[in-house]
Amino acid sequence: MKAGQKIAVLAGGVGAARLVRGLARTVEPASLSIIVNTGDDETFFGLHVSPDLDTLMYTLAGEVDEERGWGRSRDTFGCLEALARYYPETWFRLGDRDLATHIFRTEQLQRGRTLSQVTRDLSEAWGLAARLLPMSDDPVRTILQTDQGPLPFQEYLVRLHAQAEVKAVLYSGSERARIGPPVRDAIRGADLVVLPPSNPIVSIGPILSLPGMRELVKGCPAPVVGVSPIVGGRAVKGPADRMLAGLGVEVSPVGVAQLYRDFLDAFVIDERDAAERPRLEEMGLRVLVTDTLMRDLARSKAVAETVVSWQR
Amino acid sequence: MKAGQKIAVLAGGVGAARLVRGLARTVEPASLSIIVNTGDDETFFGLHVSPDLDTLMYTLAGEVDEERGWGRSRDTFGCLEALARYYPETWFRLGDRDLATHIFRTEQLQRGRTLSQVTRDLSEAWGLAARLLPMSDDPVRTILQTDQGPLPFQEYLVRLHAQAEVKAVLYSGSERARIGPPVRDAIRGADLVVLPPSNPIVSIGPILSLPGMRELVKGCPAPVVGVSPIVGGRAVKGPADRMLAGLGVEVSPVGVAQLYRDFLDAFVIDERDAAERPRLEEMGLRVLVTDTLMRDLARSKAVAETVVSWQR
Repeated sequence: MKAGQKIAVLAGGVGAARLVRGLARTVEPASLSIIVNTGDDETFFGLHVSPDLDTLMYTLAGEVDEERGWGRSRDTFGCLEALARYYPETWFRLGDRDLATHIFRTEQLQRGRTLSQVTRDLSEAWGLAARLLPMSDDPVRTILQTDQGPLPFQEYLVRLHAQAEVKAVLYSGSERARIGPPVRDAIRGADLVVLPPSNPIVSIGPILSLPGMRELVKGCPAPVVGVSPIVGGRAVKGPADRMLAGLGVEVSPVGVAQLYRDFLDAFVIDERDAAERPRLEEMGLRVLVTDTLMRDLARSKAVAETVVSWQR
Repeated sequence: MKAGQKIAVLAGGVGAARLVRGLARTVEPASLSIIVNTGDDETFFGLHVSPDLDTLMYTLAGEVDEERGWGRSRDTFGCLEALARYYPETWFRLGDRDLATHIFRTEQLQRGRTLSQVTRDLSEAWGLAARLLPMSDDPVRTILQTDQGPLPFQEYLVRLHAQAEVKAVLYSGSERARIGPPVRDAIRGADLVVLPPSNPIVSIGPILSLPGMRELVKGCPAPVVGVSPIVGGRAVKGPADRMLAGLGVEVSPVGVAQLYRDFLDAFVIDERDAAERPRLEEMGLRVLVTDTLMRDLARSKAVAETVVSWQR
């Protein structure tokens, strides 16, 4: 990457945040446009919660809870404890400081502002140079068809601890959701498009489900580089491995690459999966092998450097 | 009072709460219907806050912050601190645990439930036997005309620390606000109507401003007993003295009694104001003199006993 070149990232939650924090220290943060999944947005206690937008925002602000990978560091849970008096279910962990974000977002949306506008205000309040862009201002909801019935993703993940068998996935509302002009411009104007090691089904999937999105990514002149979320046959974090298996997708870098086959140019895989290289190259992909586990900021930066230097 | 007899209380915030906590230990709590001022209800950060309803609820639940007289005990302020990043003004002190009440109320109102219904749910959640009744489900807003322009009461009190000269008071929306059927029934069916030592202008005033309310109180068969909020020429708490003076009302038990003249039967005044007795008796009032400062629960109970035993 040369100075001034622009990067568009299709991002989910924690996996994306770990790569993005590295990217923001590898290139100019202002060159980053991060297109964020909103398929997990939920209303809890009447408040609009955007888990992935918040994870990225707090991470970029250096305010994320490092251990969990989401929520605000050193947060308290007094309000949630008190909500338990009024609500039968309080399984979604909302910290007191985190709540301020949901309260502001909800209040602004009710005033008629769009999610994009509110996200811009929040980003400004945190002094972020990188641009966070909700994938759409129209509501999309990821619903998992499971052996326990249909479940929104957060309910499956947080309430049921991913202990349900996923048989199919539905991006409800997606067919009517429009790609926002800033998202379109970010992809069209990018010098590099990055797919972080996010869950392909529930993080990248909803973004790609937007009408015209796959064509937009495929048609943009920039190369598309991905990082595999599957390492050694398992998801680095979260239930991506079980979900892929449930949906009949091979739980490997090859399985993930096949989901992105129509637009992927290069794939960063972990050293433990070096043996996959020939199969990926057969798919026409350029393959980069490195230690992809982003345990700390230094590793995030190293993976980010591999991503941006893929042509060399 | 005999067992089974019913008491209706017209209530504001802290002064009313201090008497009500005594009443709830003097008579059966279930015999109490507390009709609460909603003229100070405000929307902060998109959340519907009902300061007087909450002060009474937390007090009856034994959860009020004793020192302040409002808000929840041992509360923290993490969310409010975090809101300061998004909002220019955070002068209204909302604790993390307290916020749960406003979040629930707001969410329920948005579902189309009435303030009365939500108040009943909240009271049930706290296991209160006494009935809390908002004076109306229709919005009324107390606006003070001051030398610094028109101010909602909470803004005058909390943001400006009552440092503005009140020239007039307006109960905005009052002319269209309806007395709820449970409020009407509580007053009609009462064996005693009580006016605690609440601010006559901003606590009792909004209740009495509802169309038909003064007639309802005057026409009910039960005696009406008040407790003076003015002791020794000053308000026990809050800016009632300055407000009365600004509005040209005598700052004394007599001045307050005159505001209630059309329906008041008896007035409890403090020992320091014993000299006022003749003037009050001239107004046709029965006068009871006691130590009216409710510094602790024992004093609240003593004043409550004076109120309910006024006939003897």
